[in-house]
Amino acid sequence: MNYSIRKAIETDMSSVLNLIKELASFENEPNAVVITVEDLKSHGFGKNPAFKLYVAELDNEILGIALFYERYSTWKGKAIHLEDLIVQEKHRGKGIGNALYYKVLKYAHQNNFKRVAWEVLDWNTTAIDFYKSTGAKVFSEWRVAQMDEKSLENYIETKDN
Amino acid sequence: MNYSIRKAIETDMSSVLNLIKELASFENEPNAVVITVEDLKSHGFGKNPAFKLYVAELDNEILGIALFYERYSTWKGKAIHLEDLIVQEKHRGKGIGNALYYKVLKYAHQNNFKRVAWEVLDWNTTAIDFYKSTGAKVFSEWRVAQMDEKSLENYIETKDN
Repeated sequence: MNYSIRKAIETDMSSVLNLIKELASFENEPNAVVITVEDLKSHGFGKNPAFKLYVAELDNEILGIALFYERYSTWKGKAIHLEDLIVQEKHRGKGIGNALYYKVLKYAHQNNFKRVAWEVLDWNTTAIDFYKSTGAKVFSEWRVAQMDEKSLENYIETKDN
Repeated sequence: MNYSIRKAIETDMSSVLNLIKELASFENEPNAVVITVEDLKSHGFGKNPAFKLYVAELDNEILGIALFYERYSTWKGKAIHLEDLIVQEKHRGKGIGNALYYKVLKYAHQNNFKRVAWEVLDWNTTAIDFYKSTGAKVFSEWRVAQMDEKSLENYIETKDN
C-alpha cells in the first residue's frame, strides 16, 4: 500500500476525531468522547500545542493516527507518551499501525527521550503481543488512577466548604 | 504541624531528588533513578519547564513533594498527570500527602483541566483506598506499557538496518 505518513494539519481534525471515536467504541466506551473538532484544532496547533500527531494517508483519506506528547519521568527524565495509536478497522493488518508506532519511537529516539510510555487494555492481547515483540514492557503491578471532571468538582467543593 | 506548601525553587532540587530516591526504594526499584539534581534544575525551570512541583516545607526542610505536568486526553481534552506524590517516611500520617494532593487537584480545577491521572502500585492498598475515598477511579483493565531507553535504541537500530 502506498500510504504516506506525515504530520497532521488542522484540516485533518475531522477525520482524526472519527478515528478517536472508532477507538472509543472498540474500547467499549462509545460515549466517552466529549472532545470536538474545534478542541483538537485549538489544542494541537498554534503556540504550545498540547500534542503532536502523525497521520497515515492514502488518496486523501486518513487511515490511521498516532497522537503523542511529552511527559516527565522522575527516574529517567524526559519521556514521550503515546496516547492513541489508531488504524481504521478495515485497514488493519496492512502494517499501518506498525509504521505509525515506528514513527513515534523514531521521533523519541532522535530527540533523546529516555522513555516512551502508553496504556493498553489487558484483553487486547494482539496489541500486547505486538508491543512485547518490539521490546516494550507491559507491567502487571501498576494501576491507572483517574479523577474525572465531575469528581474533581465534587472533591474541591467538599474540601473548600 | 505548621508546614507550608509552596511552589518549588531550583535550590530545592537536592531535597527533591532524595525524596524521589526514597519513593523508588519503597517501590522496590532503588537503582532505577538515573536523574540528577542538575537534570531536575534544567528540566523544571526556565523556559518551557517539563513539570510543575509543589513542596511541603517545615523549618527549611522539604517534607514532601507533588510533581505534575500536562497531558492530553483525546476523549476529554487537557489533563494533568500527577507523576509523584511523596512524603518522607517519618512524616507520614500527618496530612501532608493529603494537602499536596489537594493542592494539585485545586490547580487542575482552577485551570479547567478535564481530568487528573496518575499511577499506583496494586499492592499499595493504603494509597488506593485514599484515592478512592476522594472520588478517583482505579482501573483494573488498563496496563501500563513502556519502552525504556535501551530497548528504544535496539528497536530503532533493528528497524533501520
